[in-house]
Amino acid sequence: MSLPIARDVAALRATVAAWRDAGLSVALVPTMGALHAGHLALLRRAQDLADRTVVSIFVNPTQFAPTEDLARYPRDEAADVAALAGAGCDLLYAPSAEAMYPPGFSTAIQPAGPALGLEGDFRPQMFAGVALVCTKLFLQCAPDLAVFGEKDWQQVQVVRRVVADLDLPLRIMTVPTVREADGLALSSRNRFLDARARAVAPVLHRVLQGVAEGRALARAEAALLEAGFDAVDYVALRARDLSQGAEVVLGAARIGGFRLIDNVPVSPGERG
Amino acid sequence: MSLPIARDVAALRATVAAWRDAGLSVALVPTMGALHAGHLALLRRAQDLADRTVVSIFVNPTQFAPTEDLARYPRDEAADVAALAGAGCDLLYAPSAEAMYPPGFSTAIQPAGPALGLEGDFRPQMFAGVALVCTKLFLQCAPDLAVFGEKDWQQVQVVRRVVADLDLPLRIMTVPTVREADGLALSSRNRFLDARARAVAPVLHRVLQGVAEGRALARAEAALLEAGFDAVDYVALRARDLSQGAEVVLGAARIGGFRLIDNVPVSPGERG
Repeated sequence: MSLPIARDVAALRATVAAWRDAGLSVALVPTMGALHAGHLALLRRAQDLADRTVVSIFVNPTQFAPTEDLARYPRDEAADVAALAGAGCDLLYAPSAEAMYPPGFSTAIQPAGPALGLEGDFRPQMFAGVALVCTKLFLQCAPDLAVFGEKDWQQVQVVRRVVADLDLPLRIMTVPTVREADGLALSSRNRFLDARARAVAPVLHRVLQGVAEGRALARAEAALLEAGFDAVDYVALRARDLSQGAEVVLGAARIGGFRLIDNVPVSPGERG
Repeated sequence: MSLPIARDVAALRATVAAWRDAGLSVALVPTMGALHAGHLALLRRAQDLADRTVVSIFVNPTQFAPTEDLARYPRDEAADVAALAGAGCDLLYAPSAEAMYPPGFSTAIQPAGPALGLEGDFRPQMFAGVALVCTKLFLQCAPDLAVFGEKDWQQVQVVRRVVADLDLPLRIMTVPTVREADGLALSSRNRFLDARARAVAPVLHRVLQGVAEGRALARAEAALLEAGFDAVDYVALRARDLSQGAEVVLGAARIGGFRLIDNVPVSPGERG
């Protein structure tokens, strides 16, 4: 199967307009590429929910701080194209950074509410970058819905908030986190983990799962450090929308120069 | 003639969707009400450019600083409705502040570029508020185009920049400033000028016009003060997009507790 690729907004809009004229609904799956089975689960959900699917691949510079891993973020478009073509994606949208942020670009979006705390404390630039690029992608593609992974739970809540606040006319749908057999959440950055880090990494999920099932939150950080993590940024209980509550356990920890995040819903009946 | 009024997004979108289904184009004229002949000129331009016109009236709290005149901004919906009905407007959109900014609202838009300097120095909150409310109105109404007055020249450039940067799919059109016989730019706030201030006010246009025709910029502030203005915030030459250049003369001055702004294009051949 061959996969059409749009490199600019005009090409994207032309394809989507033709679909609209034919009465077809459209779903967008925004990604940063380096696709894995988690991304393909997003695509399958998009295919279930809409007549046509667009996957975007854009490693968005505005969501990386200068100290972060923009330059080494994995990129492999040929493999991504093969995976998307095999999975029946209808269009890949892969704009350049210059097309997204041309000279003179000067608008920022500053989310608050669910963007405050947790990841917002450790990556202060990220959610503004995510809000900006998602708003642009939504307005470029004009989909009926967009599909995000629950692995980035806080990001999903930020995107939902921005969509509601700006009156963006689309629905945000989510897919549960896809995991390795040992519980490690799939992530494009997992490929960088060395053998020791890879062996320790699944403990993050196990510890969050324990908290979700009623184990003491106060013990979680020590358990992660004992298992071999170098540092724990946070383990926290929040409501689903990130307000105060106890519906989701979220955690972030560092090992071998990398940072893992994960989250687990609290089972009904647990943690009252 | 009777004028339909939409009080919420759902009613607005239902009307616009019906027009779209009938193949009609739509123009939006965003206003803060207290309509005068300048607003009606925007409506006429909108009627020239599109099949159906929406005028929005919303005194947007996010663009007023706490020290500014939100509470005393003129409001007279009955007179506005009569004027719009008489002028053949197709729909008034008049949402409440609670509908626009419900509890939990937490997203800001921060424009830079043309928003920096001039009004941005004296009303640091304004352009973020304008960018936010215009983005919301554009996404709520989904017009083919929106019409703004050139009186607020810098505002127009900010809106154009935000529209381009966020990929909002509409065109921004402008209408030259409508003036009283003595040159004073029409403004909803002019009704508050007392007799002395009203007599002095047209000098702002006269002085800007002089600079546009080649008189010394350095003399403009003194000329305004000599004419009776209490203070001059700025008189400046800029390119049309507000970058460095000499295509537009912009000024802001205060009298009797009020602040007047105006601008004049530089005549071709003047000011090199």
